Order: sequence, then structure tokens, then C-alpha cells
Amino acid sequence: MQEIYADHGATTYPRPPQVIDEMTHYMRDIGCSPGRGGYAKALDAARMVYETRHLLARFFNVPTPEQVIFTPNITYSLNMAIKGLLKEGDHVLISSMEHNAVVRPLTSLAGEKNISVEQLPCAADGSLDPRQVKKALRPQTRLVILTHASNVAGTILPVYEIGEILQQTNTFFCVDAAQTAGSEVVDFKALHCDYLAFTGHKGLLGPPGIGGLCLSERAVSVTAPLVEGGTGSRSEEETQPDFLPDKFESGTQNVPGIAGLAAGIRLINEVGRENIGKDKHRFTAQFLAGLAEIPEITVYGINDPDKMVATISINIDGIDNGDLSFMLEQGYGIMTRSGLHCAPLAHKTLGTFPQGTLRFSFGYKNTPEQINSILQALQEIVKER
Amino acid sequence: MQEIYADHGATTYPRPPQVIDEMTHYMRDIGCSPGRGGYAKALDAARMVYETRHLLARFFNVPTPEQVIFTPNITYSLNMAIKGLLKEGDHVLISSMEHNAVVRPLTSLAGEKNISVEQLPCAADGSLDPRQVKKALRPQTRLVILTHASNVAGTILPVYEIGEILQQTNTFFCVDAAQTAGSEVVDFKALHCDYLAFTGHKGLLGPPGIGGLCLSERAVSVTAPLVEGGTGSRSEEETQPDFLPDKFESGTQNVPGIAGLAAGIRLINEVGRENIGKDKHRFTAQFLAGLAEIPEITVYGINDPDKMVATISINIDGIDNGDLSFMLEQGYGIMTRSGLHCAPLAHKTLGTFPQGTLRFSFGYKNTPEQINSILQALQEIVKER
Repeated sequence: MQEIYADHGATTYPRPPQVIDEMTHYMRDIGCSPGRGGYAKALDAARMVYETRHLLARFFNVPTPEQVIFTPNITYSLNMAIKGLLKEGDHVLISSMEHNAVVRPLTSLAGEKNISVEQLPCAADGSLDPRQVKKALRPQTRLVILTHASNVAGTILPVYEIGEILQQTNTFFCVDAAQTAGSEVVDFKALHCDYLAFTGHKGLLGPPGIGGLCLSERAVSVTAPLVEGGTGSRSEEETQPDFLPDKFESGTQNVPGIAGLAAGIRLINEVGRENIGKDKHRFTAQFLAGLAEIPEITVYGINDPDKMVATISINIDGIDNGDLSFMLEQGYGIMTRSGLHCAPLAHKTLGTFPQGTLRFSFGYKNTPEQINSILQALQEIVKER
Repeated sequence: MQEIYADHGATTYPRPPQVIDEMTHYMRDIGCSPGRGGYAKALDAARMVYETRHLLARFFNVPTPEQVIFTPNITYSLNMAIKGLLKEGDHVLISSMEHNAVVRPLTSLAGEKNISVEQLPCAADGSLDPRQVKKALRPQTRLVILTHASNVAGTILPVYEIGEILQQTNTFFCVDAAQTAGSEVVDFKALHCDYLAFTGHKGLLGPPGIGGLCLSERAVSVTAPLVEGGTGSRSEEETQPDFLPDKFESGTQNVPGIAGLAAGIRLINEVGRENIGKDKHRFTAQFLAGLAEIPEITVYGINDPDKMVATISINIDGIDNGDLSFMLEQGYGIMTRSGLHCAPLAHKTLGTFPQGTLRFSFGYKNTPEQINSILQALQEIVKER
């Protein structure tokens, strides 16, 4: 049976061979720890880490490479921004489409400290009117956190417009680019944001285990690190160094992960981020057009390829989405994800809570033929229902 | 020129081919995210992660696999124990040989909350009399943190004896096994500890980017997670799940790292942890005997292969240890680490602060011939001084 992977919102598959090769190269030919020795192989590792930081800074248009911090994953990045910045009495705005990587740390922080979290109401299609932010801003609003695009319905939020609004205030702005980095324009400077959180293993085509956070200068100075420890720098001091990137990077890093991520970024630069974005746009348009011809299928979200990423959530009347996901895999080799996708808030907004949805998410290396096969499979399932 | 790697205290090199192969296998043939989809490849990934957890639980003699939590590195593990447990008014005991991965988070926590940190004084050879703990314990002593063996001088601390003492109290016990896991006996139950922190890329022969923390039942219930977010479980809830391992594992994990770590543990089980320990003991004895014949060299620490791991710190009169490290690599291909090794406290105890030491640390795949070559190189350097 053919294999069609439509779960790129979870992770990239198949992993590009360049990424695997670069990890193997580090593991076999370099192998040593950056910043932990002065010998050539340790310096080779340090150079590779620096080059990757540089590559990411250029990719996201971040002023200096040191403002790019490596983290184990984007959940860590978001926790770092949230827990490192917020203090007693702060007010936080999030959209009603946020992932549990934002909601859960905020829930726990609100329980510990006197922090109030307010949801900007998105429409039932997942979209957000930027004016909602203006309405909700208070003098105590310390932070606004927005996903760039929903991991459930793909809806793109107006992060650039909101960045413009917030630029005129003292409020910090955090953008979660989990679902957009690698295909949409994710421009740190143009976003006027203080925290840009990204992950390496989705649109950036790298391995799991590596992500990052880009910080504005003002964010660097007021954000406390989540983890402190050895940095290979200022080792005479029993306090964390206050300079970048060491303030936020303690302990031995995921060096093979960083090597793999570099290969992913280089591949995107070669192919062209815009071309990947265009492909995904084409898959989305093709898929949505096909779905529109199957009346038994409900599509959630904005249903407009221009206003979303290649992530489409559906349900079929009378079939549990978990069963549907299983049928698609067993009968057709199509891999999808069912349920709540770690984002109960988004499902409440879309009206799909608690049953959830079946999610298709397309990416690099999907083909128009695969989209057609998925549509055919859905038609068959609907008929045989 | 030959290449002699004597920096196993920093990381394992060369990485065993089995480890690299297992990572490549995951990246190429599985690739998907565990717990984030119901299709076969996601389940394969979940199974691999579970098997590694099981392997680690058996390796460290932890009652259940779920009590083993994966972390990005041991610095994270130690931060999680420290920041997840300690509260206003707590008293903490550490040894005067601890790494900055313990000291720096405690310094920052002590500044934020009213937490007092007290050092158990080690002798100038780095050893610790267990009775020091009895003397220093107070009713408010919430936590004792000890490194199993010093990353500077190799000295083994009496963690088993101290575990026995603490077992009769309400004080939590955290053991840092960074330098011992994979060669010494690291037995969670016999240690009577609440937190056993380990890293994958040193003695466990795995890749950088993966570590872990084993928690006792009572530690599980009172420790707050450092990071919260999506777990692929209880996705309808906006609060972190309270069950294991999900309470402490949010976001996509370093799955290739976990695969590599499993291969490392399997290799140790095949070769025999005891045999690796015996080899290292032999290298230490051989090296110390050789060093004793070079009067210009000062050896720090306990200088007894029975009471230390294969980590030896030295200085040569009149040569800066940074220069010495450089000379050994340039002239003889010998890779070592100079300076403070992220452990200023230990150097204060050993009397080597702030100049530091040159550190040799031996591991899997070193040979008696290599030890001889290092001794010859040192003799030549001393003569040509």
C-alpha cells in the first residue's frame, strides 16, 4: 500500500536525507562538546553551533545571532517567555486559538501568582480582529501571546497588524511560529515582537529535540532563564552569566539536533521558502475544493487558502474522527491526527469541543496526486458509511 | 598524528556506531512523533520511547519505568528537582564539590525566595565525611544534593551512606550521577534517593541532547514541572496532567536522542557496566602511578583509584593549564579540558581556584597504550619546560 503522510503539523516526515546526513556527520566526525574544550573537535562543534545560530538569525531577520537561543522544543521556548517575564499582578492576553503549550503554563502561573489571563475572542472560523487587542489592552497588560497560525484549523492570525499596535505600547509580544516557520513569512523585525518561538522539527525540516526562541533586546534584559547551570563561560562565578546566548543556554546542548536543523534551514533556503509556501497553498486550495464536493464533510476554520496554512480540520457526520483516522490509515495508508491536538481552547472556538476533529496537515514532499488520493479515500469512506 | 581523547567527563567520543545507527534508523525509518497520532509509525515511535524508559528503569533499579523522566540534559534535570521542590524558608545542603548546574540555580533561587543554601565542607582531597550531613541537618532541611563523583577530581562522595542517614528523615535527597552512570553502581533503590539525575551523552554512551531524572513516589507528588504544555494526553484540560510521565514531559521530545540513548544502554549491558568500570579503574591506577613519577606534576583530589572515577586533575609548575592543554593537543593529539570545568566550588575546595586544573577523563575505548602515550607526552613537556 502507498504511504501518504498528512501529519506535518505534528512533525516532518520523511525527514530530508540532508538532515539525517548532517546529524550523522556530527555524531561520527565531530562528536565533541562545543565550548567545553579548546581542542579542534570542540571548536568545530562550537563553530557549527554558531553558524546555525547565524543561519537562523538571517532566516527570521533577527538583528544579531546571539538573540537566537536554542531550546529543546517550542514548548520550552514558550514556557521560558511566560515564566521568565511575568510577575505578580500582570495581565496577559492570548487568543482563543492557543495551544496548551501556552495555556497550561499560564494556568499554572495564574494559580501561583496573581496573574490574570484574558482570551481575545476569535470568530468561529478561528480568525481574530486586530481591534480586539486594542479593546482589551490595559495598563497592566504585560504580554500578548499569539499563535501565528492555528495548529487545528490553520487560520492565520493578524500578528503583523497586532505587532504594529503593540509597538506603540509597553506590552511585550510573543509569537508562536510552530505552524508557520518554513513556509510563511516569519520576520522578527517586521513583527515588532519580543519573543519569537519556533521549533525545528516541523516546517523547518529538522529533527525533533531542537527548537528556539528569538528575543528582543528589552526581552533579553528582563527575562529570567528557566534553567541555570554550566555554560563553559565565566566558570568562576556561581551566578548565571548575563550575556547572550549563555544567559539562556545551560548544560550540554543537543548538538546533533542543531546540526540537523542547520541542514533543514539550508534546504529551505535552496528550495526557497516561498516555493514551499506556494506548494502548500496549492495543496490547501486543491484539498478544500475537493472537500467542498463531499456534502457529508464539515470543514472547520476559515476555508480560504489565502488566509490559512496547509492544516485542515474536518469531521464526517456519523463517524468518530478517531475511527476515521484509523480507517484512513488501515485502508489507504493515509496518516492523520484525530482528537483535540493539544488545543482545547481552539476547539471550543471552532465548536468542535470535546469531540475534536480529524486533521490533515500538508508539507514539503506532499504531491497533488496524494491530495487526490486522500479525497478519493474520503469519498469512498463516505459512500460506504 | 594519533588522536587520544581524554575528555570523557565532557562527552563520549568516539560515539559507538550502534548509537549513531539507532538514531539514523529512527530518523529514516520511523521519523514520526510518539503520542501524537494513532498511525503505525507514531506507535512505533511511542513503543521505542517506552522501551528506552523501561531499559533505564532496569539499569538504575527504579521501581517503575514511568518514574524515569526524559529531559534535554542533566542541567535541566537538576533545575527541575531544585526549582520544582523548594519553597520559601527551605534549607538546602550541598557538598563543596558541586557543579554550577546545582550551584547556579540555587544561587538564583536563594535570591528570589528566602532559601538558605549551606555547603557541607569536603576535605582538600574532595572527600566528604558522611557525618557532616548529620551535623548540618536542621528541621527545615528540605533537600540534600550531592554529586556522586566530582567532575573535577573524580572523588566519589559517600552517597549510599548519606542516603541511609537521610532515609530516617523527611529530607529529600538528590544525586547527580553525571560522572558515574555507566561505570559505577548507580542504584536508585539502594541510594534511597528522591531524585537521580543523569545525562545520556557521557558514560551512558548516547548522544548529547538527552538526559533524565528518576523520581521517588513522594517526589513525584510534590515536584512542580519546570515546563508545561501539550502532552498528547488529557488534551481537553487546560491544566498539566498529574500522572507520569506526562506531568514532567511536555512538547515533542528528542526522539532520535532517546533512540541513541537506548543503543548506548544496550551496549553497556552487553559489554557489562562492571567491565567498563574495571577498565576505567585500571586506566586511573596506571595514570596515577605514572604521574607519581613526575615530581613537577601536582595531582589534585584523593589520588586513590578505589575512591574515584577516571577523572584526574593536575597542574605542572610554571605552565598555565590552558597552555598545557593546547600543547598536548598540538604536539600529541591528546584532547583534554583546562580551567574550572563549570565547578568553581570544587576548585575552591581543592585549592585550585581561580587558575583551575588540566583535566584528563577516561572512558570507554581508551587503552593502556593511550595512557602510556599521555604519560610520555607529559614527561617530554616537563623536560622541555
